[in-house]
Amino acid sequence: MDFTIENALIATQDNYTTASVQVVNGRIAAISSQLDTAGVSVKADNKLLLPGFVNAHTHSSEMWQRGIMSMFPLELWLAELYDFAPLDLEKVYLSALGTAVETLLSGGTTVVDHLVLIPGKELETIATAVRAYQEIGIRAFVAPLIQDESLAAGIPCGDTKQTHEPYFRSTQATLNIIEAAIKQFHRPGEGISIVVAPTGIQLCTDALFRGCVELSDKYNLCRHSHLLETKAQEKLAQEKYACTAVEHLNRIGYLDYRTSLAHCVHLTDSDIEILAKTKSTVVHNPLSNLRLGSGIAPVLKYRQAGVNVSFGCDGASSNDSQDLLEAIKIGSILHNLTDKDYQYWISPRQSVQMAALGGAIGLNMENENGSLEVGKKADLVLYDLTSLSLLPRTDPIGLLVLGRPVNVVDSVWVNGKQVVAEGEVTTIDVKNLRQELFKHSEWQTKRKSKTVAELETHYRLVMGL
Amino acid sequence: MDFTIENALIATQDNYTTASVQVVNGRIAAISSQLDTAGVSVKADNKLLLPGFVNAHTHSSEMWQRGIMSMFPLELWLAELYDFAPLDLEKVYLSALGTAVETLLSGGTTVVDHLVLIPGKELETIATAVRAYQEIGIRAFVAPLIQDESLAAGIPCGDTKQTHEPYFRSTQATLNIIEAAIKQFHRPGEGISIVVAPTGIQLCTDALFRGCVELSDKYNLCRHSHLLETKAQEKLAQEKYACTAVEHLNRIGYLDYRTSLAHCVHLTDSDIEILAKTKSTVVHNPLSNLRLGSGIAPVLKYRQAGVNVSFGCDGASSNDSQDLLEAIKIGSILHNLTDKDYQYWISPRQSVQMAALGGAIGLNMENENGSLEVGKKADLVLYDLTSLSLLPRTDPIGLLVLGRPVNVVDSVWVNGKQVVAEGEVTTIDVKNLRQELFKHSEWQTKRKSKTVAELETHYRLVMGL
Repeated sequence: MDFTIENALIATQDNYTTASVQVVNGRIAAISSQLDTAGVSVKADNKLLLPGFVNAHTHSSEMWQRGIMSMFPLELWLAELYDFAPLDLEKVYLSALGTAVETLLSGGTTVVDHLVLIPGKELETIATAVRAYQEIGIRAFVAPLIQDESLAAGIPCGDTKQTHEPYFRSTQATLNIIEAAIKQFHRPGEGISIVVAPTGIQLCTDALFRGCVELSDKYNLCRHSHLLETKAQEKLAQEKYACTAVEHLNRIGYLDYRTSLAHCVHLTDSDIEILAKTKSTVVHNPLSNLRLGSGIAPVLKYRQAGVNVSFGCDGASSNDSQDLLEAIKIGSILHNLTDKDYQYWISPRQSVQMAALGGAIGLNMENENGSLEVGKKADLVLYDLTSLSLLPRTDPIGLLVLGRPVNVVDSVWVNGKQVVAEGEVTTIDVKNLRQELFKHSEWQTKRKSKTVAELETHYRLVMGL
Repeated sequence: MDFTIENALIATQDNYTTASVQVVNGRIAAISSQLDTAGVSVKADNKLLLPGFVNAHTHSSEMWQRGIMSMFPLELWLAELYDFAPLDLEKVYLSALGTAVETLLSGGTTVVDHLVLIPGKELETIATAVRAYQEIGIRAFVAPLIQDESLAAGIPCGDTKQTHEPYFRSTQATLNIIEAAIKQFHRPGEGISIVVAPTGIQLCTDALFRGCVELSDKYNLCRHSHLLETKAQEKLAQEKYACTAVEHLNRIGYLDYRTSLAHCVHLTDSDIEILAKTKSTVVHNPLSNLRLGSGIAPVLKYRQAGVNVSFGCDGASSNDSQDLLEAIKIGSILHNLTDKDYQYWISPRQSVQMAALGGAIGLNMENENGSLEVGKKADLVLYDLTSLSLLPRTDPIGLLVLGRPVNVVDSVWVNGKQVVAEGEVTTIDVKNLRQELFKHSEWQTKRKSKTVAELETHYRLVMGL
């Protein structure tokens, strides 16, 4: 349905102007202060129009464990997470919807779901998430999370001679599942893309990474992975490869302009050069990096080296939210700690560009997405500037990025289709979703993780605790 | 009006129970799973009841500049702030209301307003803020922000021989204003307390600190101040006193159990011992410390040394919000960066205790406030656990502290009087407040600060930039 957003505030080079935006056949057809109304008229007085942001890294089913996970570093946190991971498809469906709702209501129009697969129901898990995202109408990059080594392999050996159980499924069997998923679900034109997404060097063999590169080349898919989230992973890379993880991934051909890498906390200066040269994207997940004590990603260095950076919420068990505006705020001001020269600090306008265009670049869709330009797809968000949290009036983008906006997203369009109107998701029944989430869960306190009990002594030893 | 909150979820030692809470004459009269309804019945099914939090450091009138301030470190940021500070009482009134609304709707029942005074209208400024807080019904500690040195004195000299203009008002004249304010407005029983509050060692002489100590002793008032927020202040203290700022404040008798100190980022281990011995309270303002690049306050060290810590939003120009739940979340997980032994990381229950009881201790009101106990004042907050942002159900306090709660505060009582019901402030018209804030402001972009232009070269030189 064609429409015209009338009298919205939009950003110019270093100011704002009031303009109307015509959307025809799902694309931006015109932007001007003097426009006839084409199609339906959308009044946008006192509203700010921005391109949609990208939630560039999450794990939707972690929503089931938000608020309850122990205060642990990643390696032990993962052990607890997997001990209590949801194993039914209904839950996968509900948490994908929940993740999408929170993303949409915080300015996101695209989500990258590094999706945890239920063992034995891998394709069904993917089908379920795809169905949820299609129903709600968010642009989704579904990145099935795969590995071919067992969890304990992710902790460095140190001086011990630890061995690990083999993973329960062969590398080739895993790659076959991914290729089946690609054939069945990869429909970028309809807003659903499949991404190859080995979990990271800590749990994957070179054979798995290489198999993913082949699939990526064969089907022109984006590539995704965790990278150097923790000190333990930095140590492990040296044990496994006798070089840094970035050097190794570069050597085996995993890094290119379609590759986005979540976290990137512990990289050397020469690693950063490799990311710049290969045009890889860093997905910054500031809240998860704080919650798990992983560290501060050197985002100002990335920016200075010309590495593209976007923002992710990470899974809701390590955050414990899916609010992109929160990730953008903290992921911007956090770095004021890392360089005392304030000239390099990230401005709110730069944050918005990272969240929108940076996100699009990381998904190889910057020609179609990520900015308000004629010809681009209409992934748009309209913010209500009369919300108390955005008052008094000053700089709208400054208020949005540096404040703590509440109930500010008025309307959202994805691919020109409206999915939020007057602050409410229009494509699914959110009240019903809340009831289902309530029904499928219970209030509880601390749980006892068997795997943590098995791993903790070794972890503390190797990490010098 | 007496009332009974029925069937609320309340925290036990390490779990939850469902109980009812009777409030009689503004105090908690009984807490039990089997209670008759006394007075009005308040249904609290699927709601969590917690003691109110304390927004232990803010500057309400900074709300007028949120979203627009440049990305600067404190010293230059302050110069810009003061160049554009609001100078009319109507604005003081509106921003005090705005600060109170955001505090209440994020779980706060008490605010400490380190209030910027309009020159020449000092008592009127205080009267205006007091009026706003009385109208809305939040418990307020109004701490008039005073200094007796000019702004430039707050930047270290380094090797230069800088001199500064004298401050426009004498130390004694300033102290006289504070004493007049105490006599006129200090009514703790009615929820309004005056606090002595020299801005900090960077802009105050010993005479001002000593005068404040006298007033504090004479009228039994709390004491407040900024302390060692930046590296520049650490440097300045050595220039002024040839010792640390904490050593100096201890020597002149400013530190005691009624003293709360905002920021405390750059303290030595022996400074921390002094805070512990004097029973001073640290007010942690994590967002402002990030935004201004001030650093990470060593909060885990404070806790291990037995120093009481509470949370503040700081003024909305350096945050740029007044959401206590955001300050509590970031102020908790931020410290997972500072100690790799996760055993010391702050748990959500500890965060809640810091925000409520820690806040009360810092204001010398822990016998009357800060926890759900029979006999204490009814400063209470009821959270709706069916909000999407708190679903699925897991650990309610974990969800509240680690999530990004939206629209979760259902009801708030201060001193037994209801000020929020069904998520809406009942004592003032918030819609009208929004209209007034809108009317008194305009959208704008970057401004040019004259004072920043004067100070920046010297600042960069002294700070080695």
